[in-house]
Amino acid sequence: MDRLPADIAHEAAHFPEPLPLECGLTLPGFTLAYRTHGRLNADRSNAILVCHALTGDQYVAETHPITGKPGWWEAVVGPGRAIDTEQYFVICSNVLGGCMGSTGPASPRADGTLWGTDFPPVTIGDMVQAQARLVSRLGIGRLFSVIGGSMGGMQVLEWAARFPERVFSAIPIATAAHHSAQNIAFNEVSRQAIFGDPHFHAGRYRDHDEIPARGLAVARMMAHITYLSEAALTRKFGRRTRAQGPAAGRTLFDEMFEVESYLRHQGSSFVRRFDANSYLTITRAMDWFDLAADHDGDLARAFHGSRTRFCLISFTSDWLFPTAQLRAVARALNRAAANVSFVEIETDRGHDAFLLDEPDFHRTVSGFLKGCGEQQRKEENVLS
Amino acid sequence: MDRLPADIAHEAAHFPEPLPLECGLTLPGFTLAYRTHGRLNADRSNAILVCHALTGDQYVAETHPITGKPGWWEAVVGPGRAIDTEQYFVICSNVLGGCMGSTGPASPRADGTLWGTDFPPVTIGDMVQAQARLVSRLGIGRLFSVIGGSMGGMQVLEWAARFPERVFSAIPIATAAHHSAQNIAFNEVSRQAIFGDPHFHAGRYRDHDEIPARGLAVARMMAHITYLSEAALTRKFGRRTRAQGPAAGRTLFDEMFEVESYLRHQGSSFVRRFDANSYLTITRAMDWFDLAADHDGDLARAFHGSRTRFCLISFTSDWLFPTAQLRAVARALNRAAANVSFVEIETDRGHDAFLLDEPDFHRTVSGFLKGCGEQQRKEENVLS
Repeated sequence: MDRLPADIAHEAAHFPEPLPLECGLTLPGFTLAYRTHGRLNADRSNAILVCHALTGDQYVAETHPITGKPGWWEAVVGPGRAIDTEQYFVICSNVLGGCMGSTGPASPRADGTLWGTDFPPVTIGDMVQAQARLVSRLGIGRLFSVIGGSMGGMQVLEWAARFPERVFSAIPIATAAHHSAQNIAFNEVSRQAIFGDPHFHAGRYRDHDEIPARGLAVARMMAHITYLSEAALTRKFGRRTRAQGPAAGRTLFDEMFEVESYLRHQGSSFVRRFDANSYLTITRAMDWFDLAADHDGDLARAFHGSRTRFCLISFTSDWLFPTAQLRAVARALNRAAANVSFVEIETDRGHDAFLLDEPDFHRTVSGFLKGCGEQQRKEENVLS
Repeated sequence: MDRLPADIAHEAAHFPEPLPLECGLTLPGFTLAYRTHGRLNADRSNAILVCHALTGDQYVAETHPITGKPGWWEAVVGPGRAIDTEQYFVICSNVLGGCMGSTGPASPRADGTLWGTDFPPVTIGDMVQAQARLVSRLGIGRLFSVIGGSMGGMQVLEWAARFPERVFSAIPIATAAHHSAQNIAFNEVSRQAIFGDPHFHAGRYRDHDEIPARGLAVARMMAHITYLSEAALTRKFGRRTRAQGPAAGRTLFDEMFEVESYLRHQGSSFVRRFDANSYLTITRAMDWFDLAADHDGDLARAFHGSRTRFCLISFTSDWLFPTAQLRAVARALNRAAANVSFVEIETDRGHDAFLLDEPDFHRTVSGFLKGCGEQQRKEENVLS
């Protein structure tokens, strides 16, 4: 590992006021690292908040400072893209608990020591609470839209439930109103892989100048499978093999399957950019997300009286957040008499489809935003 | 760990003749541990070979000597069951490479030292080759039926392809003619979890009197999720939680989800009965299984001219071996003009359904065996 994520200077906003957390503890102030793209217009009505997924960050539409790779959503966010940065002011912040400059286990406390395992458990609601302060700091009362996939979609739903008056439109993608038993199970295996790494040192690995790289890599490899689909893996890799080890005396069994090589690469490159304690913190936040439970078991109550326009998007081959889970959200929104459209995109690329070049998906987003823009202008005309 | 699987005396047959393996190496003799139930009839025409899955063993219909739990297929095999031991002579042997008494990484070589990582890679074909010697040793020329689920089903297909004249009927269940990219990917994560355990010692853990328990448990936990289904996990556990840790000062986040507790138990109980090197050996055998590739890429050729009666059984919610994979086998059998029936059982219990109380499944097996019995008697009448 050349350098730790914490060593990089990120653009960030500091909030000195204490942040009460859902667990009952209070953070004595916090920092959110964030990036913006495009320009806020004069009446501050064109801001779109992009919420990132488990292992995403604020580098949504520009080269990543650690990996050197393109931003994670350049397929969607940029000049002329579905979220057109020539038209919209895009904000993306690293979540509370993250490891790219926002306050989390990998960031320093007031006394200079790292939070590490002392970092309190945070929820999706806490993440949104922190983001809301950032949005206010940027001088924005109401967001034109909040959008995100997977855990980003959980934040979108939480934003719409918590701050309906601050969310003109909401686009939750490939997500659900609670984490399923199967998804909790996968997260738990991830955590056990990290706990089992001897370099984890009960979370105090920084004190030992080590990281639980193998455990974190195993966690990432497993999670990566769940982001794809059987069809996508078959198309991409099938049963193709490649040689490994010295050529002399090599037998069939000295070859490895290409899908194995691919996964190992996914695992090893991930540990260079992600903090294990952050992974634990954020997977916990996802597992505890249950928007209905926060509203007496009735998801419709979360959106009661909401005037937000919703566009829900799922993908046919996504088995991590299957369409049925988002359809349940659509039904709750209908019960709440909310304004909702629901689009299922046909693709065999699994959960990852929301990050990829999927023209139907992109057209859905741009079309919905355009329609919302017209609605917004009508409302303004009525008010003025 | 109270005692190692290798410490238990298993009923076994030893085969002193060398066994040439597909990897090019040769085993200098081998042992297969096995169990039988019921009685072989006078004309030796009622023998059914049961092939076990990845982590199964020969204790198919009696209390397991390590876990003290019922046999893994008591729902199917026993007096009055679908495979009625009052009618059939049931044989089940621990696979070559296994760890319940058959020759494998956990068993001793001629010089008394354990095979460990020196154990050669074996294939499904090698497993079947070894089983064939056991069947001959038991004085059986032709098996009335060969049956098995998952990796057991791979062995069934291999038996039918290799020894068509020795297999009167074949029942491959919840299986495929090759391991998919997704299944190889999951297996690879399992292996990386084991490799990453510091107690693995590059496979020489017995020399250190240790076992890579955490890595093996993580492997098992992940695999266990793939054996179930989202619906089954939701029904069984949902988002129910239980307290953990001391009650004093406990917050919401000190609770754990029941599905987590369940998985941890699955992981920790598994390592008491299974050898890590065996796990590596057997997952490799599954990954390399590709019956079409062994027949010039044409699966139909594997069954050319076969007179075996096939009954293929899949389960609607099995996403590890989805119906489509077994349907491809059915199509190949049709192209080979083989005698084949194909039944998809409606259930939400996932891959594991083949081990559970599924009346439709059991009726399918018993009905097919009954029909085959009538056919067999007709053939005998013609011949006599």
